[in-house]
Amino acid sequence: MLNALKQQVLEANLALPRHRLVTFTWGNVSGVDRQAGLMVIKPSGVEYEALSLEDMVVVELESGKVVEGGKKPSSDTETHRALYLNFDGVGGVVHTHSRHATIWAQAGLDLPAWGTTHADYFYGEIPCTRKMHDAEIAGRYEWETGQVIVETFRQRQLDAAALPAVLVHSHGPFVWGTDAANALHNAVVLEEIAYMGIFSRQLSPGLPPMQQTLLDKHYLRKHGKHAYYGQ
Amino acid sequence: MLNALKQQVLEANLALPRHRLVTFTWGNVSGVDRQAGLMVIKPSGVEYEALSLEDMVVVELESGKVVEGGKKPSSDTETHRALYLNFDGVGGVVHTHSRHATIWAQAGLDLPAWGTTHADYFYGEIPCTRKMHDAEIAGRYEWETGQVIVETFRQRQLDAAALPAVLVHSHGPFVWGTDAANALHNAVVLEEIAYMGIFSRQLSPGLPPMQQTLLDKHYLRKHGKHAYYGQ
Amino acid sequence: MLNALKQQVLEANLALPRHRLVTFTWGNVSGVDRQAGLMVIKPSGVEYEALSLEDMVVVELESGKVVEGGKKPSSDTETHRALYLNFDGVGGVVHTHSRHATIWAQAGLDLPAWGTTHADYFYGEIPCTRKMHDAEIAGRYEWETGQVIVETFRQRQLDAAALPAVLVHSHGPFVWGTDAANALHNAVVLEEIAYMGIFSRQLSPGLPPMQQTLLDKHYLRKHGKHAYYGQ
Amino acid sequence: MLNALKQQVLEANLALPRHRLVTFTWGNVSGVDRQAGLMVIKPSGVEYEALSLEDMVVVELESGKVVEGGKKPSSDTETHRALYLNFDGVGGVVHTHSRHATIWAQAGLDLPAWGTTHADYFYGEIPCTRKMHDAEIAGRYEWETGQVIVETFRQRQLDAAALPAVLVHSHGPFVWGTDAANALHNAVVLEEIAYMGIFSRQLSPGLPPMQQTLLDKHYLRKHGKHAYYGQ
Repeated sequence: MLNALKQQVLEANLALPRHRLVTFTWGNVSGVDRQAGLMVIKPSGVEYEALSLEDMVVVELESGKVVEGGKKPSSDTETHRALYLNFDGVGGVVHTHSRHATIWAQAGLDLPAWGTTHADYFYGEIPCTRKMHDAEIAGRYEWETGQVIVETFRQRQLDAAALPAVLVHSHGPFVWGTDAANALHNAVVLEEIAYMGIFSRQLSPGLPPMQQTLLDKHYLRKHGKHAYYGQ
Repeated sequence: MLNALKQQVLEANLALPRHRLVTFTWGNVSGVDRQAGLMVIKPSGVEYEALSLEDMVVVELESGKVVEGGKKPSSDTETHRALYLNFDGVGGVVHTHSRHATIWAQAGLDLPAWGTTHADYFYGEIPCTRKMHDAEIAGRYEWETGQVIVETFRQRQLDAAALPAVLVHSHGPFVWGTDAANALHNAVVLEEIAYMGIFSRQLSPGLPPMQQTLLDKHYLRKHGKHAYYGQ
Repeated sequence: MLNALKQQVLEANLALPRHRLVTFTWGNVSGVDRQAGLMVIKPSGVEYEALSLEDMVVVELESGKVVEGGKKPSSDTETHRALYLNFDGVGGVVHTHSRHATIWAQAGLDLPAWGTTHADYFYGEIPCTRKMHDAEIAGRYEWETGQVIVETFRQRQLDAAALPAVLVHSHGPFVWGTDAANALHNAVVLEEIAYMGIFSRQLSPGLPPMQQTLLDKHYLRKHGKHAYYGQ
Repeated sequence: MLNALKQQVLEANLALPRHRLVTFTWGNVSGVDRQAGLMVIKPSGVEYEALSLEDMVVVELESGKVVEGGKKPSSDTETHRALYLNFDGVGGVVHTHSRHATIWAQAGLDLPAWGTTHADYFYGEIPCTRKMHDAEIAGRYEWETGQVIVETFRQRQLDAAALPAVLVHSHGPFVWGTDAANALHNAVVLEEIAYMGIFSRQLSPGLPPMQQTLLDKHYLRKHGKHAYYGQ
């Protein structure tokens, strides 16, 4: 079973450059096997074209210990792990510096829900975290990054299952999903709505968010028991 | 004859990613056979690379009933159908979330005619609909989307044949034409002028529309009995 | 000799989509043989991938009469012809609706010389013409377009050899050069500086043009008898 | 050994179009062999696809004299040479007119450190030089360009090793690194952060630079003896 997970995580990592979400090695995807208590993640700083199944690193979910793989895991591993431990139902996590999502993160702004493209995938505005405190940066930085994401969702009472993305202030997006492939899918959508949001706001400064009823309609058309999109 | 229509609709759907008008499955093209009272449309949520002639769904124009095809038709089918029923002479309809047309739709703004590129295809500004009412969203949403488009053209006394596109507020563009291929062609043009419009307006806030005489000249150079463009 | 000219004009037309200067058939290149008093130009509305040597249309420079070729010449032929007749030394002309040059034309603004990329090719700001008068639009429109370009250069006392491009108001760029290939080269550069200009101006509203001494230095580094760029 | 250097410089030059950093021949990469006192650089005005190992020009570092190669070196050679002579530890230099870095240079603005993408490679804002004086432009222009870069770093007390890029006012970027490949890598990153910076600033005018602690954390995560990124 772990082989199937490795394969899916490998494929999602390889899809990052194809979807133009990454420059060089600036992105990583992980997947989790909650029953086994293990996560699989990309090794640190390895180019996508060189990645093989054997390069995938297996990490114990509880301890963060590497239990398989000859390479060091992604430097962002602890952030991924914090998300799995705090957000039930998350099966895959993607981190990139994709251009337009990162632009919103650098500006330190939430990305409002301005259209049905957004509403089809994200049930409300994509939150941007607060800046990290110096002690968090000086401490277990990557783990604390995860904690700040979790804090953002707790304080704003957001549902991570219905809002599978966050913008980390001055950094970039973390996106998740039911598995690695779904998290990747959501990362592509986030980049798309981040692009459109920049220019929607330019055309109409002070643009209010879309109507709640339309947001509900589109999100629920694709999610939950009344969904009717697709086959 | 329906086979020829299916083929044309299939080809126009396959052209969507080639013209970079779609991400994932976010776009659909249909075509109509008015004599037979039937329309052909893409199935819902199927990826373009996987589409075959057999996947095309045949829908009765009057009733909206699926009469051929093993898959569910596009979730936007009822909007397409409303356009065929209300706009004479429309032979094909394209719906996408193409980036720049969607940006105008999200901003809720009409796209003014600012140059001859626009005037060569669209006889005046591309209208953006009003927001949909809650009852319309809660009701037969996709059908009502079509009704709001029709209302926009009626109230503004616009000619759908000379202005083959609309921006649905907080959503994206619907574009039409004499057949599926022509609708696709217009969708590509709309995306192009939507891009140029964003930055023309940035360079010159408050930019007035182009001269009516120049709009007339270019539109009529390509359309109607005095056209002289092409072979 | 005319065959060599046809070949060069064909190749420059085929290069338009490769340099992403055109959508569909929205661009045309011509070349001139001044001794023979003939110009060669793309046929109207024919797709680039379908173009062959035989499609090239030969037009008499003085009269505008088609003297060879089974197809109608580009609808912009009269504009090209006006440029050859008025600007000595021009050997090739390119017209496109390339995105960013067209954005400046739609905004009705001159494109200032803001950097050495500009100065390496264009000796000063790229002028935008005035709007055309109704009588010009109603008359021999394409010929009058050429006349308005010529008027712009005369009134501003510009040297067409040192400033081989113009923005036609509410329309798009016409670019020229010593031959078709050189005109194409300049069209690519214009699109590049038009893009950079939009965002330079956004970063710094009211940005003054570059220093005259730097403009001189770069233009003369590549042009004239003291040029020292290249082999 | 010089053959290995030529090979690396050739490869880095060939990578320029692949990373979309150049139009036509607008970019050049050099590398240095400090022990031999020689630098290797691209010939002037030659297209990338035509470049071979034999085309690489070898220049004496101290004198600027060409000592090998049948072609004239890049017109920017003297700027490269000035950088090698003044910045210890620089092994490779890249000059391009890459779109977004050039936009900042044309606007005459420093590019602030607004996120971790920037901080991973550049330890602080990318400086933009002052405008060049007329005497510098009229004199040994390319050499003086190098001197103005050096002056910028001296006056602001910047460390060229930790901040391997500069924006030359009204011109474009010069980027360096430990060797030609590393300089190229930095040039790609600069273009990326220049793009993101334009729109971060648009979303949030007056955006302050990122926290110093976060800048330290990311820069030192990848550089120096406590680095822990990669294998």
